[in-house]
Amino acid sequence: MFKDVLRELVERTDGAIASLLMGFDGITVDSYTRDPSALNVETVGSEYSVVLGQIKQAATMLDLGTMQEVAVRAENMTTVIRLLNDEYFVAMALTPSGSLGRARYLLRVQAQKLLDRLS
Amino acid sequence: MFKDVLRELVERTDGAIASLLMGFDGITVDSYTRDPSALNVETVGSEYSVVLGQIKQAATMLDLGTMQEVAVRAENMTTVIRLLNDEYFVAMALTPSGSLGRARYLLRVQAQKLLDRLS
Repeated sequence: MFKDVLRELVERTDGAIASLLMGFDGITVDSYTRDPSALNVETVGSEYSVVLGQIKQAATMLDLGTMQEVAVRAENMTTVIRLLNDEYFVAMALTPSGSLGRARYLLRVQAQKLLDRLS
Repeated sequence: MFKDVLRELVERTDGAIASLLMGFDGITVDSYTRDPSALNVETVGSEYSVVLGQIKQAATMLDLGTMQEVAVRAENMTTVIRLLNDEYFVAMALTPSGSLGRARYLLRVQAQKLLDRLS
């Protein structure tokens, strides 16, 4: 139901490793990994889900409006997270040289499709 | 000592509102705001400093290597944060239509200058 979108995100982005649809409770709805041995994408997602909740709280407190996207670049991996609604987010993991701009663009255009299927 | 770099970051980026050099303890080293009435950049920075600490912890736990950069897009503001070392980060606040790519580029090229002056 979600796998085709999650696969497309990864296959159409240079340097993408995995994609993930997850609830803010850290429970995976679905995921797709290019190389399953490379990364436990669900572990990464559930760690980040906690932090995302806190960023959301900070943004609300600061009156910055609805949170839309978070990108984290670390030495070994870039993560881009697109918030779908108050319950779910979709995320992509990329190699450090992966195309962050492309990932952000595809997440944005595919977000509505995922939202429609979630409801 | 830092103001010239912080001013340059803002003035050379379309849609930039403010820049900030801060410790992870939430204490401001220096800041520059294009329109001081628009935003309390130190309040935003100190809220985000808490979250940043948690993202750093998550990245370490997940073995993703050193955290380098975090970008948060909210409805009313985009924030780009570049980590300088274990103690300090530099951040920029932009309008939603501001140039995120430009901000990221300038933060990256100016990071070493700030680091040199901090030591």
